[in-house]
Amino acid sequence: MAVSGPYSIGFDFGTESVRVLVVSTADGRIAAQSVSNYPHGVIDSTLPTTGAKLPPDYALQHPQDWLDCAAKACKSAVKSAGIDPQDILGIGVDFTSCTMLPADAHGTPLCLLEQWSKEPQAWPKLWKHHGAKTQTDRINQIAQERKEAWLARYGGTIGLEWFFPKVLEALERSPEVYDATRNWIEAGDWFVWQLISGPFPHCNESDIARSTCQAGYKAMWNNKTGFPSPEYFAAVHPKLGDVVTTRMSGSLCAPGKRAGRLTSRAAELLGLEEGIPVSAAIIDAHSGVPGAGVAGDKTMVLVIGTSACQMLNSKVEKVVPGIAGVVEDGILPGYFGYEMGQASVGDAFAWLAQNLKLGHDELNREAASLPPGSGGVLALDWLNGCRTPLMDGRVSGSFVGLTLNTKPAQLYRALMEATAFGLRWIVQLLRDAGVPVERFVASGGLPAKSPLLMQIYADVLGEEIRLAESDNSVALGAAILGSLASITDSKADTRSAVTAMARQRSEPVYRPRSEAKGAYDRLYSLYRTTGECDGPLARTMRELRSFATE
Amino acid sequence: MAVSGPYSIGFDFGTESVRVLVVSTADGRIAAQSVSNYPHGVIDSTLPTTGAKLPPDYALQHPQDWLDCAAKACKSAVKSAGIDPQDILGIGVDFTSCTMLPADAHGTPLCLLEQWSKEPQAWPKLWKHHGAKTQTDRINQIAQERKEAWLARYGGTIGLEWFFPKVLEALERSPEVYDATRNWIEAGDWFVWQLISGPFPHCNESDIARSTCQAGYKAMWNNKTGFPSPEYFAAVHPKLGDVVTTRMSGSLCAPGKRAGRLTSRAAELLGLEEGIPVSAAIIDAHSGVPGAGVAGDKTMVLVIGTSACQMLNSKVEKVVPGIAGVVEDGILPGYFGYEMGQASVGDAFAWLAQNLKLGHDELNREAASLPPGSGGVLALDWLNGCRTPLMDGRVSGSFVGLTLNTKPAQLYRALMEATAFGLRWIVQLLRDAGVPVERFVASGGLPAKSPLLMQIYADVLGEEIRLAESDNSVALGAAILGSLASITDSKADTRSAVTAMARQRSEPVYRPRSEAKGAYDRLYSLYRTTGECDGPLARTMRELRSFATE
Repeated sequence: MAVSGPYSIGFDFGTESVRVLVVSTADGRIAAQSVSNYPHGVIDSTLPTTGAKLPPDYALQHPQDWLDCAAKACKSAVKSAGIDPQDILGIGVDFTSCTMLPADAHGTPLCLLEQWSKEPQAWPKLWKHHGAKTQTDRINQIAQERKEAWLARYGGTIGLEWFFPKVLEALERSPEVYDATRNWIEAGDWFVWQLISGPFPHCNESDIARSTCQAGYKAMWNNKTGFPSPEYFAAVHPKLGDVVTTRMSGSLCAPGKRAGRLTSRAAELLGLEEGIPVSAAIIDAHSGVPGAGVAGDKTMVLVIGTSACQMLNSKVEKVVPGIAGVVEDGILPGYFGYEMGQASVGDAFAWLAQNLKLGHDELNREAASLPPGSGGVLALDWLNGCRTPLMDGRVSGSFVGLTLNTKPAQLYRALMEATAFGLRWIVQLLRDAGVPVERFVASGGLPAKSPLLMQIYADVLGEEIRLAESDNSVALGAAILGSLASITDSKADTRSAVTAMARQRSEPVYRPRSEAKGAYDRLYSLYRTTGECDGPLARTMRELRSFATE
Repeated sequence: MAVSGPYSIGFDFGTESVRVLVVSTADGRIAAQSVSNYPHGVIDSTLPTTGAKLPPDYALQHPQDWLDCAAKACKSAVKSAGIDPQDILGIGVDFTSCTMLPADAHGTPLCLLEQWSKEPQAWPKLWKHHGAKTQTDRINQIAQERKEAWLARYGGTIGLEWFFPKVLEALERSPEVYDATRNWIEAGDWFVWQLISGPFPHCNESDIARSTCQAGYKAMWNNKTGFPSPEYFAAVHPKLGDVVTTRMSGSLCAPGKRAGRLTSRAAELLGLEEGIPVSAAIIDAHSGVPGAGVAGDKTMVLVIGTSACQMLNSKVEKVVPGIAGVVEDGILPGYFGYEMGQASVGDAFAWLAQNLKLGHDELNREAASLPPGSGGVLALDWLNGCRTPLMDGRVSGSFVGLTLNTKPAQLYRALMEATAFGLRWIVQLLRDAGVPVERFVASGGLPAKSPLLMQIYADVLGEEIRLAESDNSVALGAAILGSLASITDSKADTRSAVTAMARQRSEPVYRPRSEAKGAYDRLYSLYRTTGECDGPLARTMRELRSFATE
């Protein structure tokens, strides 16, 4: 049965590739989709222009990859959908975050300008770039000293992966790059800018529409008070006082609101018609909430891929220690949107499978036959630091309980269980603070692929977990926002668009097994003790970071 | 140049195989040698007679393997040496310890009797059998309560791997096996018994010569006071009170002293002449001291293979917390012999190489190119528990400091460094107690194979390390004892036999590199903090053992 129009298009920029979805605005069915892998992938060993070795905690990307791959995937999807481009009503964009870059006044990334191409700080920093450790410390320290009110909304800690630490890192490591930058900008906002004003070098900086989602969760922006004050920024670094007014042009715009319309140049690039409305960008994980058909409160959406985000809409605003952020209207209008996160989930499993003799499939099969507890192996899943609740990029992963009999599948299962314990900790923090969490919907790449992981999560949480119907709920969420950008954006419209275009599967439903409860209650308690934030292991981990060589 | 006679023969029983050396008593040169692998290897998954699954902490052996392989290797070595069997003056035997078994009055292992063959407790328990956890606790608890004087000689703790815990395990798990056993006996003593009185079922139990080495280090025996008292044993278990008098026949005999002479049946089995003097057995590691040409005090001999032992002769007897044991004349006459140990060294490296995608060679090569600190990965090497100084089989291995960038070679090197830190801890304990340690000689399978490991040890200790000349210093030590059994055994004879038959290599000498000192001092301190015996990690490890499934 043909998928009927009209359509919207969702661009979903992930860590390794961009996915383009062409979706019916009537029922959310996918007319066609296409994925294009970034030729440069994650740039974490050497700089492409010079071959210079990068520090071990660097993770950069190539901005030309984003444009080229978006164009290629979009053309391919529209072609295979076989639809009339006139029937495309809107475009939505989600992007990893905080992935950010320095650009000039015309939208050109600094790293694509000859004079800056050899300077790592001129390149886009991927969300998992961890180069800004001392800068994060300073940003937190000054905020605490000044008792900045906005700090409580971020669980008391600004993350190593956020926007201003990355800006300050550039300012300190390469003042020239900082001086030459007209616009520090989120990659999602940059891509939208290319569509509605460019592409570069034809962009006009007054056209920039910065997403309230990215700004709210990653750049300390708030609807009532805006960005932190110039006094705060000046206290962090004398040259940073005017960063918002002089190096962050444009206005703020909520996801689902119209940021602008597709320029003729951008239309040509993508093989679309000029003038299509484009929504402001949204963070990829947050896009998974509408994409999973969740329009109300108390339902936690677990977006589980290389890393994991937990998203929850609530009618109450509470101070929750360690969460990534709470932003009013940050996910959907009318709610306080809570964001929590785990910095490595699929990435951690992949790291293990890559280094062990057995591959993912064998490890999964053998791990599934093991009882809870992985034969006495306990892992800490912080191979990329701990996002919620420690917000500490210097803690690291660990395995405890190894014996000469330990099997690879036990290591693998232990890592899965560790991510489940991390999730349970997050849920407990919310509930302890008085934020209700009653239902769980999983989406992203892993849940459909790993029934074992979902069963472990259900067992460890003691809660039912349902799956989003779409395998591409994040991309679908972007397409829903594209649809919203084409119409008026009252709350009623949002609700009906979400429920029309997305929903959950009726099966499988992962239910907690009572026989697993005792073991997981004990192991969760051991996980908490072992990972105790000021305990000797965590202190050791932090000191060990000084031995990191690559 | 032909190796000139007369000769002695050393039988070296390892974990996987027996090695037989035919050696010149004049200069220690090897006329021939042969290795034979035990067909049943380490029995740790299923019982050969029934196929029944064994508990995860079991490690048994097949006694017929010992006889068959000894005969095969002995015949092969003598044949390839091309010597006149009349020129063989003596036989020495070293054996892993505490490897022990229940036998009847005629030398027959219970497991080879039809009615007991299906009962795991009737089988020989290999040194690394860890089934006697609760029994070890009880043996320690009663000794502490009764303030048994002998406890201090063992660092205050009896080990999980020792003789009486294994006996008590059998008594508790299978009282029938205990009742049917006439002789609980060390495997090395059992083999000597077969040579001088058997083989079974022709042995006479009054011929048993129990080695003072095995008895002293593994069975709480002391030259001045004998075994612990019947009152002590009865307090441990009512049926154990008479264990020494009723179930441990024979007399005690020091290594190098003549236990007896080869019977005609045993001579036929081995392809040798009847009547050759046979030395009392010695523990394999201890045999490495004379085998490394070390006849004096203050030189620590590191025997490094699947596990590691550290042996030191000293003129002073001190209480050293956590050491395995101090036995007067336990290694060489005239000294207090100190034994310390690490329960997994080569075993731990093999476990890792077996499970990782890269093999030993690649891992070694890449690990050698890394700076000290393994890129911030710290390991605890307790994959088989911690022998010295914690004497705790329930602690386990761990890796801390893992990131998504961690490479297999970093795990491998971290494990090497961990064993070096464990060694440094042992040396520090001795020196803190006032026992001088001035020189280091390494022997065993690993030192010659892994220059990287030796350099790490030199760097971490801050000391020079020399290698034993012989690649088979343990087996050579046994042959030296065989030579001693053929002559009178005054101290002067011991010294001259040792220095005539064994020595150290002039090169390589591993010297500490000053540039590694700072990093290793810090990492050693982190190792000590992380592994702190009553710290949260160690407590977690102990609790995790209850999740062990296989």
